[in-house]
Amino acid sequence: MKKVSEFKVTPWEVSGKVDYDKLVREFGVSKIEDSLLKRIEKNAGDLHFMLRRKVFFAHRDLKWILDEYDKGNKFFLYTGRAPSGSVHLGHLLPWIFTKWLQDKFGVELWFQFPDEEKFLFKNDLSFEDTEKFLNENMLDVIALGFDPKKTHFIIDTKNADLMYKEACKVAKKITFSMVKSSFGLNEQSNVGSIFYTSMQAVPAFLPSVIKGKEIPCLIPHAIDQDPHFRLTRDIMPKLGHYKPASIQCLFLPPLSGAEGKMSSSEDMAIFTTDSPKEVEKKIKKYAFSGGRDTIEEHRKKGGNPDIDVSFQYLKMFFEPDDKKLAQIEKDYRSGKLLTSELKEYLIEKINAFLKEHQNKREKAKKEIEKFLYKS
Amino acid sequence: MKKVSEFKVTPWEVSGKVDYDKLVREFGVSKIEDSLLKRIEKNAGDLHFMLRRKVFFAHRDLKWILDEYDKGNKFFLYTGRAPSGSVHLGHLLPWIFTKWLQDKFGVELWFQFPDEEKFLFKNDLSFEDTEKFLNENMLDVIALGFDPKKTHFIIDTKNADLMYKEACKVAKKITFSMVKSSFGLNEQSNVGSIFYTSMQAVPAFLPSVIKGKEIPCLIPHAIDQDPHFRLTRDIMPKLGHYKPASIQCLFLPPLSGAEGKMSSSEDMAIFTTDSPKEVEKKIKKYAFSGGRDTIEEHRKKGGNPDIDVSFQYLKMFFEPDDKKLAQIEKDYRSGKLLTSELKEYLIEKINAFLKEHQNKREKAKKEIEKFLYKS
Repeated sequence: MKKVSEFKVTPWEVSGKVDYDKLVREFGVSKIEDSLLKRIEKNAGDLHFMLRRKVFFAHRDLKWILDEYDKGNKFFLYTGRAPSGSVHLGHLLPWIFTKWLQDKFGVELWFQFPDEEKFLFKNDLSFEDTEKFLNENMLDVIALGFDPKKTHFIIDTKNADLMYKEACKVAKKITFSMVKSSFGLNEQSNVGSIFYTSMQAVPAFLPSVIKGKEIPCLIPHAIDQDPHFRLTRDIMPKLGHYKPASIQCLFLPPLSGAEGKMSSSEDMAIFTTDSPKEVEKKIKKYAFSGGRDTIEEHRKKGGNPDIDVSFQYLKMFFEPDDKKLAQIEKDYRSGKLLTSELKEYLIEKINAFLKEHQNKREKAKKEIEKFLYKS
Repeated sequence: MKKVSEFKVTPWEVSGKVDYDKLVREFGVSKIEDSLLKRIEKNAGDLHFMLRRKVFFAHRDLKWILDEYDKGNKFFLYTGRAPSGSVHLGHLLPWIFTKWLQDKFGVELWFQFPDEEKFLFKNDLSFEDTEKFLNENMLDVIALGFDPKKTHFIIDTKNADLMYKEACKVAKKITFSMVKSSFGLNEQSNVGSIFYTSMQAVPAFLPSVIKGKEIPCLIPHAIDQDPHFRLTRDIMPKLGHYKPASIQCLFLPPLSGAEGKMSSSEDMAIFTTDSPKEVEKKIKKYAFSGGRDTIEEHRKKGGNPDIDVSFQYLKMFFEPDDKKLAQIEKDYRSGKLLTSELKEYLIEKINAFLKEHQNKREKAKKEIEKFLYKS
């Protein structure tokens, strides 16, 4: 028997070729069934392509969220970003879907910037660094068009007057041995990293505390964050709060191919501030191809879109049109479409997206104040 | 050889008959030498009886504090109170000395109320409880007459917007194995209790952060808190701050005698809100006596002031006059002064003190706002 490639998924590391079916079983989440998709479509009016294509593919308690919504008990959305570097396309993916949820369901979004997280987990990162990235990262979130009236940014160190007390309530219910097993910490881990998950739990119930009534919470996130929220879900009922529900997406692959996830620590990401030239160069040079070695061979045998990073970026992010995508897939598989042509198409799509994003990002500089939650 | 009684001193438990000489060696603190007392007397104009009588008996880096002071580099004071019950005489003792330091040296006091500490360490304590005690406890501190212009109350959960970020900087330098050995925590300890010492470190350098220059810090405290500050002293230089100095006192004994310390968890304390009748009853009924079983025997053989709780309260707290104290000691030792007479004298002293304290405590209700640090 052949040894299958090993993979690892924790909130701090994703490596190897991820077996999502295995992950679903190990984490104990559910795949999103068609009946749930139909209910979302009924409420939203349409179905986002990330749902149709199972980019968002797993969940916890999504049925309950929709039941409550149907009863008139609206949920709020919670997602976040630990500022530790520049934002890349892999970060944007779940936020774009979150924006769609906000628009379609008319709900509030609490967006957490845990500016202490990476400070605590990375030796060489200072608070001066995270402060700089925080400001940059907020621009990317605002640029996506979230409703400032319904969107609240909470920054752990700045909103700690609200959050720390609530985090202590969570922390009192979590022992070291629980976080040790969930997050792979040990006795040499610093005491801030051991405490940290308590802070990540807080936005899941903070709006309920502030408003003095229980509001269901839906967390859209990439599946590697599930260990945090699994623990959060165990604790919340003990504090008299609802368990937060979640809807979880695949990882956008790095340029190098299907292993791991797009990550700023390697030169394998497209950043939101990349120039058209940089995008062109990165896609042409690094985007792993499912095409054949020679044009002749490609024409004859066709390419493999399933392992082709450019095709995956179109499918997961840049080509919402199902018909166009199906045509591209067909043509690539048959050999009619060459890798170079596929890449050109993607480059145009990314650069059109980034041109608009960068414009909005520039305008966002004047809008930050509107989004900051003032306690 | 007789087995000596065992004792235990941690920030959360003091039990047994404390061998202070052993504690000084184990903790690695220094006794306050006469040369240091002379320097304090020179600067302050006189010497507080708690220094003369070695109630404040140990220190770390006190010489450095005085050197800096002589150079014109004033220190600030830092002490605190974890709100978890009513304030008793044992709490007041170091604060009264702290007030004297503030007056004599004209320095700022940062008074921490770590309202999460006991919440995290005691199963049955809620934040509703600590909030109630916090308000009560602040009155006792204010009643002692601290200068509102030079005194800042910081409340961990309410000032966390300032403190949490600084605590994370400390936490990044402390591993679980370090707190485990210092504080007797284990894998079943909650992650808030593991993080907590980072918050207790913050006031030792927060004024330096706020003012943008390094200010020496002197912490007057009962010696059981030394493990916190020993750790704090190890970390501070790594963050570019001075090591805080400390001046440490003995424990005021419980009514029951010379073992442990006055503690609100037992019915062995005199609280600041006790009525004259309650004080009288507690002293008469519970205050351990060094006198003899019968008046005849007492007259003949005399009493032992060294183990007599009433005498110790006079010596440590209620009789600042050295001549009067010496006379009492002599008369008690000779048998001229009976236990009942000694107790009557103490009861009068305590009740006179509490009458004034309770008046000031009442007035303090209108003054809380002046003391709260606004970030």
